[in-house]
Amino acid sequence: MKIAVIGTGLVGQAWAIVFARAGLEVSIWDGNHEALQRATNIISKQLLELQTHGLVSDATAAMNHIRVASSLADALEGADYVQESLPEQVEIKRDFYQHLDALAKPDAILASSTSSIPASLFTESLPGRHRCLVAHPVNPPYLVPVVELCGAPWTDAAVIERARALMELVKQQPVTVHHEVEGFVLNRLQGALLREAFRLVEQGVVSVEDLDVTVKHGLGLRWSFMGPFETIDLNAPDGLADYCKRYGGMYQSIATEQTDTNPWSEELIHKAQTQRREQLPADKLLDRRLWRDERLMALMRHKLQFEHTSE
Amino acid sequence: MKIAVIGTGLVGQAWAIVFARAGLEVSIWDGNHEALQRATNIISKQLLELQTHGLVSDATAAMNHIRVASSLADALEGADYVQESLPEQVEIKRDFYQHLDALAKPDAILASSTSSIPASLFTESLPGRHRCLVAHPVNPPYLVPVVELCGAPWTDAAVIERARALMELVKQQPVTVHHEVEGFVLNRLQGALLREAFRLVEQGVVSVEDLDVTVKHGLGLRWSFMGPFETIDLNAPDGLADYCKRYGGMYQSIATEQTDTNPWSEELIHKAQTQRREQLPADKLLDRRLWRDERLMALMRHKLQFEHTSE
Repeated sequence: MKIAVIGTGLVGQAWAIVFARAGLEVSIWDGNHEALQRATNIISKQLLELQTHGLVSDATAAMNHIRVASSLADALEGADYVQESLPEQVEIKRDFYQHLDALAKPDAILASSTSSIPASLFTESLPGRHRCLVAHPVNPPYLVPVVELCGAPWTDAAVIERARALMELVKQQPVTVHHEVEGFVLNRLQGALLREAFRLVEQGVVSVEDLDVTVKHGLGLRWSFMGPFETIDLNAPDGLADYCKRYGGMYQSIATEQTDTNPWSEELIHKAQTQRREQLPADKLLDRRLWRDERLMALMRHKLQFEHTSE
Repeated sequence: MKIAVIGTGLVGQAWAIVFARAGLEVSIWDGNHEALQRATNIISKQLLELQTHGLVSDATAAMNHIRVASSLADALEGADYVQESLPEQVEIKRDFYQHLDALAKPDAILASSTSSIPASLFTESLPGRHRCLVAHPVNPPYLVPVVELCGAPWTDAAVIERARALMELVKQQPVTVHHEVEGFVLNRLQGALLREAFRLVEQGVVSVEDLDVTVKHGLGLRWSFMGPFETIDLNAPDGLADYCKRYGGMYQSIATEQTDTNPWSEELIHKAQTQRREQLPADKLLDRRLWRDERLMALMRHKLQFEHTSE
């Protein structure tokens, strides 16, 4: 199985790590020669960092699976799966997929990392449009394993299944999004919760800090290893339907107060931003991002302890 | 500092563990004599279990802090803080708080574990209504530390502050809910996310299993140690306001598709329940709840490693 990673910004670099870590042969390419050279250095450093944290067994072996291609055609030579991570502009993707579709071998899968552009907007006119889909990761995919797979209406079901199998092979967690919706699944869920969070801050019900406490020391704990449906399934004696019977009325009543669709106002954003900067000054943002990545790595190690048993 | 735990069902038992684990003197009482005797056995077993998992240093010492009271008056004797966990019926609480207010010492705080009844509905006519509030835990509070504190309009601000200080002392994570809203904060956030989750399943966008994968291997990871506001604050170069500028439009557009307020239909609940039972047969629910508690305990141990450093 050979992989081509096209576009070597942050997202492409991370994908190269995911595939090489799993022992697959990866060619990487970027239209910007400097960006491509920079990427190999960053990937190499990041693989060593992951090895230090026990999340890659042999960084050197992984690095040896990565080959810098001399051209797009060279990168695509023999590739069974192409992961494209170009800028989020529909015109760029529409042009580029014509080249991809022409140059990639006929049964190769063409997958886009886009978080916001449905595959139907840049693949419609391609002869090989049946083999195109979105494979949307969370950044960085080597620490956050979910990948949302979403085809256009003309994508072959078998292509989605092959992409799913590949993601499982490289230890990612694929999710099939059955039709194109804005934000796919993850950002729609995040949006729903963020909207209520901003609403509660706007109404003065709770502070930004206490809202985060409610999630990180409450709601987020079970969700980090079960998800919301399993959580409620286990929270009533007879499971999910029983839970809905007991609490569905409360949730419906609350829902009637969660219907406004105004944009978040400047005042509200300013209020939330001000409270965040009181907790974390702007000059500490970079340090805190490093702390976040350390915590994510530690959480992944913690979760991997359970993976072989009952999850 | 002396604590009275009134009502010794599951929630009361768990509160006794929280206070005793922290070294405070706890009297427990229940109007049902058998329930009270049963509770001491369960508390004792649970403390040993927590000791085995490294979450209580000395179960015997903790147990020695718990005294079974012979009457309500005996339980309240000298108590500075009363945690009431009676059934969720407003009439029961209204009657009972008259006794509580009459028998507790004048400066004792009276806190209810209710998840659904605002304090204003059962404390209005009490001479000591200024010292009454809701202190809503997540079950079980010795594994999920958040506690939502919500007073009635007549609750003294100083009473809320004293309750907050006590919760911090016993290693819980207090959140102040500044005015009475249905579901307080936690269940409003959970409701917003569940509603979109059910909607996506109803529309055939995603399966119940894949929705849980999206959260437990994606969205829920950062939320389990940062919360949603800190997550977005770190996800754009210049912080939260920058994030809103980049993604606010997408979230607003999605929000316009998240406004229906119908109850979850029988068909939808049946669909979700059926998918859950395919993943977990009904006769495995009990085993899976034990697994969940093991995972929660392991997650708490994992999180405690970081508590003294940078969180």
